[in-house]
Amino acid sequence: MTKQVDFYFDFSSPYGYLAAQTVDDLAERHGADLRWRPILLGAVFKKTGAAPLVDLPLKGDYARRDMARCARRLGVTFTFPETFPFSSVAASRAFYWLHERDPAQARALAKALYHAVFGEGRSIEAPEEVAAVAGELGLDPSSVKAALEDPEVKARLRQEVEAAVAAGVFGSPFFIVDGEPFWGHDRMDEVERWLRTGGW
Amino acid sequence: MTKQVDFYFDFSSPYGYLAAQTVDDLAERHGADLRWRPILLGAVFKKTGAAPLVDLPLKGDYARRDMARCARRLGVTFTFPETFPFSSVAASRAFYWLHERDPAQARALAKALYHAVFGEGRSIEAPEEVAAVAGELGLDPSSVKAALEDPEVKARLRQEVEAAVAAGVFGSPFFIVDGEPFWGHDRMDEVERWLRTGGW
Repeated sequence: MTKQVDFYFDFSSPYGYLAAQTVDDLAERHGADLRWRPILLGAVFKKTGAAPLVDLPLKGDYARRDMARCARRLGVTFTFPETFPFSSVAASRAFYWLHERDPAQARALAKALYHAVFGEGRSIEAPEEVAAVAGELGLDPSSVKAALEDPEVKARLRQEVEAAVAAGVFGSPFFIVDGEPFWGHDRMDEVERWLRTGGW
Repeated sequence: MTKQVDFYFDFSSPYGYLAAQTVDDLAERHGADLRWRPILLGAVFKKTGAAPLVDLPLKGDYARRDMARCARRLGVTFTFPETFPFSSVAASRAFYWLHERDPAQARALAKALYHAVFGEGRSIEAPEEVAAVAGELGLDPSSVKAALEDPEVKARLRQEVEAAVAAGVFGSPFFIVDGEPFWGHDRMDEVERWLRTGGW
């Protein structure tokens, strides 16, 4: 049976960005069916009472250092955006809108959005900024902007966030492998081990 | 130059217990000078505003599952104690008192205390309970109990906690390798990589 990996992430999550660099290869190595599922951590935090990592005393400073260190180890460009945290609503809506039409291109858009913000330090908060990134992939920016205001698209994102919380997701990145939850970029080794061994 | 690894942990930390199973071997593989340094997370959390992991919505359930899963992978016995969180003041004082006299035996006591609570599910909160574990190592229980009320021992623990916070420590386990901080049991691979490569 094909294994299922759900990859939950927030477009404003630096560790989600790092995970996005290697998650496709990881799933492919094990022939797993991978689903990219953007969520809104802000909405999740309202339910869990958590706060953005980089705002916390001591932990915040450590996190910034650790993110940069992880990126260096992976050989990945990493820029901390000027505005942080930022709203990832527009980016997430664009993803699900496109996913209805072309899942592969939706994944390409997710990577391009992540690269724009954490690779290049651009803002991807405003609808125009998301549309511009989509335009660089050959999509029509005005269709993207219109989609961001579509009630069905808005409802889809809300449903996705609710379903994620119902599944126990509370952070980014978060992986569910055939029902088994793994939280954090630093758990990708365990995700891989779980796929390889079928669990322990 | 010999590398220095400071291993900070709280005796009430399940992930600290897991880290304690392999940290000696890790340091030995790289000829590093390892210091076991118990701290009081409760005192640290007062400064950082953090809360015990297992009390948090969603995160708490995940953490319990993850701890058991990590223990299974390591092949380590793991029991979640009935009373949690619990005070680790007595255990920590006993460690530093003994460390002044015999560092190797202090480390043996730390392992025995961790094993009692997370391996066997015994309480190590009360002075008598700590003294009993020390007694099983051949120490005199009444000397241990007296030491727990010694103003110098109390002051030593306070100084250790303050020094840890000043060094940026905010969780357990926490490692500082020649000035480089690593937080979490799941960062021990990075600690090892840092020791091997000298950093990146």
